[in-house]
Amino acid sequence: MPTGPLPDHLRDLLAKPNPAVIGTVRPDGQPVTVATWYLLDGDRVLVNMDEGRARLEHLKNEPRVSLTALDSEGWYKHVSVRGPVVELADDPDLSGIDRLATHYTGKPYANRERGRVNAWIEIESWHAWDGGKALR
Amino acid sequence: MPTGPLPDHLRDLLAKPNPAVIGTVRPDGQPVTVATWYLLDGDRVLVNMDEGRARLEHLKNEPRVSLTALDSEGWYKHVSVRGPVVELADDPDLSGIDRLATHYTGKPYANRERGRVNAWIEIESWHAWDGGKALR
Repeated sequence: MPTGPLPDHLRDLLAKPNPAVIGTVRPDGQPVTVATWYLLDGDRVLVNMDEGRARLEHLKNEPRVSLTALDSEGWYKHVSVRGPVVELADDPDLSGIDRLATHYTGKPYANRERGRVNAWIEIESWHAWDGGKALR
Repeated sequence: MPTGPLPDHLRDLLAKPNPAVIGTVRPDGQPVTVATWYLLDGDRVLVNMDEGRARLEHLKNEPRVSLTALDSEGWYKHVSVRGPVVELADDPDLSGIDRLATHYTGKPYANRERGRVNAWIEIESWHAWDGGKALR
């Protein structure tokens, strides 16, 4: 399970608008996974949640998360990054969710009614596979 | 977060050979996610691991897992199931991984050299989304 910076070819993979799933841990220790948009933002990964998500409370209790991105050109190639959420910040003008929506759909986020929260994940370690072969 | 049996339309979704990600928890409490094949096997979910996977040890320590399946026809529709691994069993004749490989690729599993282990997940609770809309 390599640590340190992602190699460029995996940064390039992670930079695409790929299907992804984030894993968090509930206060009772149970893992929870859900599909999510994400964005490679410098060396961190940005995700964004509705202000009402239970996941937001879980993150305050256990900031460590794992995110698996499936290559949009074929999901047998996938990269997973792990690390803590190092910053949580309200997204009052929806600029965070708009960045994500634009990355995935080419358009700003449709729902302007609900409050949103940005979370930035620091990449501490990662692993990547292409079929049965580990990528380095 | 509904508990109890999956409604039929979500069983039908889960029964397809969808891209999926499983989340487990390491002994230090950190979540780990990775892409996986899975199969709806009666009311349980079957996954299969290489005998050398660290994930196998994690499961003995913390049997609760979460699996998110992304609809193969469009990943904004997704279903997540949570619950414990209630059975772990060696797969000496590779019949378990062959079931999974056949489900996804139409062919038995190519690598006959490595030992494999089956894990059956009991579905205790689930959630499903189609875009921003929760599915029931």
